[in-house]
Amino acid sequence: MDCVSHVVVDWGTSSFRLWALNRAGGVLAERRSAQGLLAAASEGFEHVLDSHLAALSVPEGVPVMMCGMVGARAGWVEAAYMDAPARLDRLAEQAAQVPSARRPIRILPGIAQRGAGEADVMRGEETQLLALVGDGFEGLACLPGTHSKWVVVAQGQVQRFATFLTGELFHLLRSGSVIAPAVEAAAVMNPRAPAFARGVEDGLAAPETLANRLFRLRASWLLEGTAPADTLARLSGLLVGSELAGAARQVGTLANVALVASGPAAEVYEKALALAGVPGVVRHDAERLVRSGLHAAALSAFRLERASA
Amino acid sequence: MDCVSHVVVDWGTSSFRLWALNRAGGVLAERRSAQGLLAAASEGFEHVLDSHLAALSVPEGVPVMMCGMVGARAGWVEAAYMDAPARLDRLAEQAAQVPSARRPIRILPGIAQRGAGEADVMRGEETQLLALVGDGFEGLACLPGTHSKWVVVAQGQVQRFATFLTGELFHLLRSGSVIAPAVEAAAVMNPRAPAFARGVEDGLAAPETLANRLFRLRASWLLEGTAPADTLARLSGLLVGSELAGAARQVGTLANVALVASGPAAEVYEKALALAGVPGVVRHDAERLVRSGLHAAALSAFRLERASA
Repeated sequence: MDCVSHVVVDWGTSSFRLWALNRAGGVLAERRSAQGLLAAASEGFEHVLDSHLAALSVPEGVPVMMCGMVGARAGWVEAAYMDAPARLDRLAEQAAQVPSARRPIRILPGIAQRGAGEADVMRGEETQLLALVGDGFEGLACLPGTHSKWVVVAQGQVQRFATFLTGELFHLLRSGSVIAPAVEAAAVMNPRAPAFARGVEDGLAAPETLANRLFRLRASWLLEGTAPADTLARLSGLLVGSELAGAARQVGTLANVALVASGPAAEVYEKALALAGVPGVVRHDAERLVRSGLHAAALSAFRLERASA
Repeated sequence: MDCVSHVVVDWGTSSFRLWALNRAGGVLAERRSAQGLLAAASEGFEHVLDSHLAALSVPEGVPVMMCGMVGARAGWVEAAYMDAPARLDRLAEQAAQVPSARRPIRILPGIAQRGAGEADVMRGEETQLLALVGDGFEGLACLPGTHSKWVVVAQGQVQRFATFLTGELFHLLRSGSVIAPAVEAAAVMNPRAPAFARGVEDGLAAPETLANRLFRLRASWLLEGTAPADTLARLSGLLVGSELAGAARQVGTLANVALVASGPAAEVYEKALALAGVPGVVRHDAERLVRSGLHAAALSAFRLERASA
């Protein structure tokens, strides 16, 4: 394979994504797998990475920059958190070095927020934010997912942030609660369903009633035979609506939001933000941003010359 | 066994409790087991009941009054819901008859609340409320549990109610979420811990931030090594505090609350209600009430003569 300047890897709890890049950050090749943290811990992190590099015939010496849970305590090498407020252009110099005879390998740190009742952490999202501030962004960033992040970004820094367990709650309730039988026949969650909109509105208007409205999803299925797809859409809407109410409380008025998302989550949050009347929402592709952030960090950490595409 | 007038059974999802009573409602003998709905559905409801009656040598002909999930669609015989507003003194006449050659057996109905967004159900709690109104109660009843109920009772009727998934959320989060590793070393939840009080206060003051505060329990354990017992107490406090905020929204100002509870839940909710400054909380033993409600229903349904103790 020609022209590979460096390799970047987004290595999370449940997924592995690798891109071989040229100096300009252009993608020469990519690899994706489900070898997230748990799988990699048993197969061996080095073995997993080497197998993907070998599959692409990446020469020895080509450096690798990584981010995500691979840098957690339970990951490959721990990349100690930077504390918020955190300058994103310092991420690269704080990267942890992974011992390797074949090539330089580094892992970007996550960001921690400390203080009683304020403790919060991110790993992976900081790399997306690095790309965002590289484009000059200031404002509020929303990064939905299993653990949605709301981040106040100013002057190239992560000022403060709040993580919501929304996606995890959705999966727990959908699969392991008394709501499960009411939604198990639903294939996919449709954010364009009126039931999603009603859920968002209820979640926003009365987030304190969440645990009651969750039970009522079951009751509505029992008493009225509510369709599984509607119940699932309402469940999602309630949780996302409550999150929007909570985000407004924790990070301030929701406006001029950079929505950093890929796949179904992007549509879900775009719809919810529109229902909530949040102005100035700009969507960014999460995968493009993480790759771009890793690229910027690699150029800096490995002192590679920038080049135009 | 002498003097058995009737037998009463509280048969729930996870437990079976039977009492042999005299005419005055005095307990002559009791049986308890973990043969809840799932176990009984595989062993056979009739077999389970008969085995306990045989163990106490209850003569043929002695009637049995039951309540709880045994009357659900997935139970023994479905006892159709009464609709709220529901007169509690009508429960006995609405009881479902279980076919049996040996004795009269009936199951009390649950109560349903219908209407868009209002759908809610109870099974078992209505029997406790029957005993409560038999003592002349009017006001707000709180019946904590896996699915906590808040019920407006007036003129002998269940006017309206709201069920909160609080206990189930606690168990899901404690055992199956990213919070699990932070609490797995905690033995019991101590409602007298300061962390419980802080959780209740946070849940009451900002219930919309619940999903964030839940994630922060994990972050606090990661960053600060927060003790598992404190994290567990705070988790419980957050959920119960949010429930109190939601109950105030769904059923009105919290005051003069009949707290119907047994075991650890009684202490947890008594403490939370005190922290919330709710006036006029009177604790009632849930088990005594369900037995007393079943007794009253049995006297009425089987036309047994009342007798003094």
